[in-house]
Amino acid sequence: MSTSGLNMSRRIRRTPYTDRVEQHGVRGFSVVNHMLLPKAFEPSVEEDYWHLRQHVQIWDVSCQRQVEIQGPDAARLVQWMTPRDISKARVGQCLYVPLIDDQAGMVNDPVLLKLAPDHFWLSIADSDVLLWAKGLALGAGLKISVREPDVSPLSVQGPKAEDLMAKIFGEQIRLIKFFHFDYVEFQGSRQLVQRGGYSKQGGFEIYLNNGSMGSALWDVVWSAGKQFNITPGCPNLIERIEGGLLSYGNEFTLENNPLECGWEKFCNLDNAPDYLGRNALQAIAKQGHTREIRGIMFDGGPCPPCGKPWPVHAENVEGLQIGRITSAAWSPRLNRNVGLSMIDKPFWTPGQKVAVCSADGMVRPGVICALPFP
Amino acid sequence: MSTSGLNMSRRIRRTPYTDRVEQHGVRGFSVVNHMLLPKAFEPSVEEDYWHLRQHVQIWDVSCQRQVEIQGPDAARLVQWMTPRDISKARVGQCLYVPLIDDQAGMVNDPVLLKLAPDHFWLSIADSDVLLWAKGLALGAGLKISVREPDVSPLSVQGPKAEDLMAKIFGEQIRLIKFFHFDYVEFQGSRQLVQRGGYSKQGGFEIYLNNGSMGSALWDVVWSAGKQFNITPGCPNLIERIEGGLLSYGNEFTLENNPLECGWEKFCNLDNAPDYLGRNALQAIAKQGHTREIRGIMFDGGPCPPCGKPWPVHAENVEGLQIGRITSAAWSPRLNRNVGLSMIDKPFWTPGQKVAVCSADGMVRPGVICALPFP
Repeated sequence: MSTSGLNMSRRIRRTPYTDRVEQHGVRGFSVVNHMLLPKAFEPSVEEDYWHLRQHVQIWDVSCQRQVEIQGPDAARLVQWMTPRDISKARVGQCLYVPLIDDQAGMVNDPVLLKLAPDHFWLSIADSDVLLWAKGLALGAGLKISVREPDVSPLSVQGPKAEDLMAKIFGEQIRLIKFFHFDYVEFQGSRQLVQRGGYSKQGGFEIYLNNGSMGSALWDVVWSAGKQFNITPGCPNLIERIEGGLLSYGNEFTLENNPLECGWEKFCNLDNAPDYLGRNALQAIAKQGHTREIRGIMFDGGPCPPCGKPWPVHAENVEGLQIGRITSAAWSPRLNRNVGLSMIDKPFWTPGQKVAVCSADGMVRPGVICALPFP
Repeated sequence: MSTSGLNMSRRIRRTPYTDRVEQHGVRGFSVVNHMLLPKAFEPSVEEDYWHLRQHVQIWDVSCQRQVEIQGPDAARLVQWMTPRDISKARVGQCLYVPLIDDQAGMVNDPVLLKLAPDHFWLSIADSDVLLWAKGLALGAGLKISVREPDVSPLSVQGPKAEDLMAKIFGEQIRLIKFFHFDYVEFQGSRQLVQRGGYSKQGGFEIYLNNGSMGSALWDVVWSAGKQFNITPGCPNLIERIEGGLLSYGNEFTLENNPLECGWEKFCNLDNAPDYLGRNALQAIAKQGHTREIRGIMFDGGPCPPCGKPWPVHAENVEGLQIGRITSAAWSPRLNRNVGLSMIDKPFWTPGQKVAVCSADGMVRPGVICALPFP
C-alpha cells in the first residue's frame, strides 16, 4: 500500500458501480459523502483530459447523493436554505443553489431538481445536507419528509455524450435542455436523466433509482459507447480547473460566503424571499466582500499535486500574501499550470502578477485570471 | 498508486499531526469527518496490536472533531439530541451519548464533555453533527452558538500511557478518573486532557486547542515516550473488534436505533427527559427490537479485509441469512477470526452456530459471541 493508501471499510460506502470501476482498473479514489469517488484511471489524468474533450466518458458520481425533500412545506424549506429565488423554478428544471447558514457561510452548493411543486432533490457536494435539512425541518416543526433515496448518478460526459445517450434511450433525449431533466425507460424502470454534469464538455447524468441495477446500466452504456470510443473516467482535475468549476471543501468552505465564490447572480439580496442568513448576507454585500475566487496561471513546469493550500504573494515572494491556491494542475493545452484560489480584493484584478509557493518549494511566477480559463 | 490509492486534496483535511505521521511512514489513511485518519504503520496491524497491549502508542485522532455547543440553551439542545439523561452530568465529566433523529435512527455516537453548565463539546464519529446541531438550533430558535473549534485530539493509548503522561504533565494526571477530564499546562497554553480513548488498553486524549502547536505536542510526547517504547499507531482493528468498540458507518448507521446497538443502558425510555425520537424509541422498545449487534468468532484461517458486509447464515450456508458482518480481522491472540455483526433476534444468542460468507468466496463456520470478546 502506498503512502496515500485508502483503507476500505463499510463506512466508506461502495456504489452500485464500484465493481465495474474496479474491473476497469481504477487507480485511486477520493471520499465524498462517505462514499467512494473514482479519481484516476490508466494511463493518466492528462490522457483522460484530452479524451474527455474529444470523445465520451462514463463516470461513477454516485457520491452526488440526493437529499429528497417532500411534503406540504418542501418549497418553504428549500427556499429557507438558499439565497437564490426558487419561486419561479418549473418542474423538470434544475437550479444551482448555494446553501448558506445564518452567518451566510456556505453549507453546500447542490443542484436542485424540482420533481413536483412539493418534491425536490438536492444533488449535493461533500457535506451532510441530509442532517442539515432534517435539523432545520425538525427544529421548525415543518411538515416534511427529508431522506436519502436509493439514487446513484451515473454521468456520461464529453462531446459524443448526446449521440451515445440517443442511441441508448432514443432521440427524445436530444430535446432535454441544459439544466433540465426528463424520464427514460430502462429495463422496465423509469429513470431520471438530466442534461448537465461536472465538466464543461457537455453531457448527461442518469439518476439511477435502484442501486441493484447499477451493473446493468453501466454495461448498457459501456456496450453502446464502444463505437464512440468510450472510456471510464471521473471528474477531471485539469478540465474542472480550466472550466472554473469549484469544489466544496477545496475552493470554499463554511468559512466562505457565496459572494466570495462569485455567485452574486444566485443571491437575492432584496427582502424577499426570506432565507436563513439573509441579514448576514445583506450586511456583507453592503460592506463589500473582501476576497473572491480567481484563476491563476503560473510557470515553472508541471506543478505537484495541491494536497494543502499554497500561499500566493503579490508580484513576488517578498510581496504581501494575498491568498491561497486550493486546486492546481498542469494544463497540457495551455502549456502552463492552472489553479483556483481565493484572492484578497486589492489584488483580484485579472492581470495582477503573483508568486505561487508550491509544495515542492519552488516559487513560481504567475498571473491572476478571470474564470473560466480561456 | 495502488487500487486503494487515496487522492489528496484540501477537502480531505490534513491535521496538525499529519506532517509527523508522514515522517513516521504511515502506510494508509481513512477519511473521517472530511479529515485524514492514519490507519496503518509498518510493520503490520498485528504487530501494532501486540505493541498496543504491552506498551504505549501515539495516535492522531484529530478527526474526532469537536462540536461546541455554548449558550443559555446549550443543555436543552444537547438533551434534545440524545435519549441519555444528561441532567446529572457534572462539569469535568464525559458521557457516551447516542444521538438520534425523530425516527430514533442513529445520527452519531459522540463522547459528550461538559465544560461548564452552559458549555459542551461533542467529540464526534463520522457524520456532520455540526450541521445537525446547527439546523436544530436555528430551526427551533434556540439561544446558542454551535461551531467547530480548533481542537484536535492526540491520543496516548496502552498500559504505559499513564506513566508517560505523568512524566510529561506531572503526577496529578494520575488523579483523572476514567471518562473524566482536567486541564494541563503545555508551553504556556491550557489544554484539556481526558482519560479514555478508542481502545480497551487504557489511555488519555489530549484535546489540543490550537492546531499550530501540533508538531510541538507530538514531539514532546514522542521524546518522553522513548523510554516506554512508544510507537506511532492508530485505532487498531483487531483490538477494537475484540473490545466490542463499534464504529458509526460500519456497525450501525442512520438505519439503526440505539437498542439494536445494545445501548439500552444509555436510553431513558420514561417520559422525562424529552428528546427527539422519544416516541419512536418508546414504540420500538414496547414492540421489542428485532436485531442486535453481536460478536462472531469464525474459522478458515486469516480472513480478508471486510470492505463490504459479509452475509451470515444460520448453522450453515444453506441456512437462513440472519445478519451481516461489517468489521472483521484475524485475532492472533484468540487464533481465530473475530467480527462484529448485526444479527436477527431468533439467532442472536451466544453459542448459535453460523456460516460466514467472506469476500474471498469461502464459507467459514463460526459462532455468535457476547461482546467484548474474551
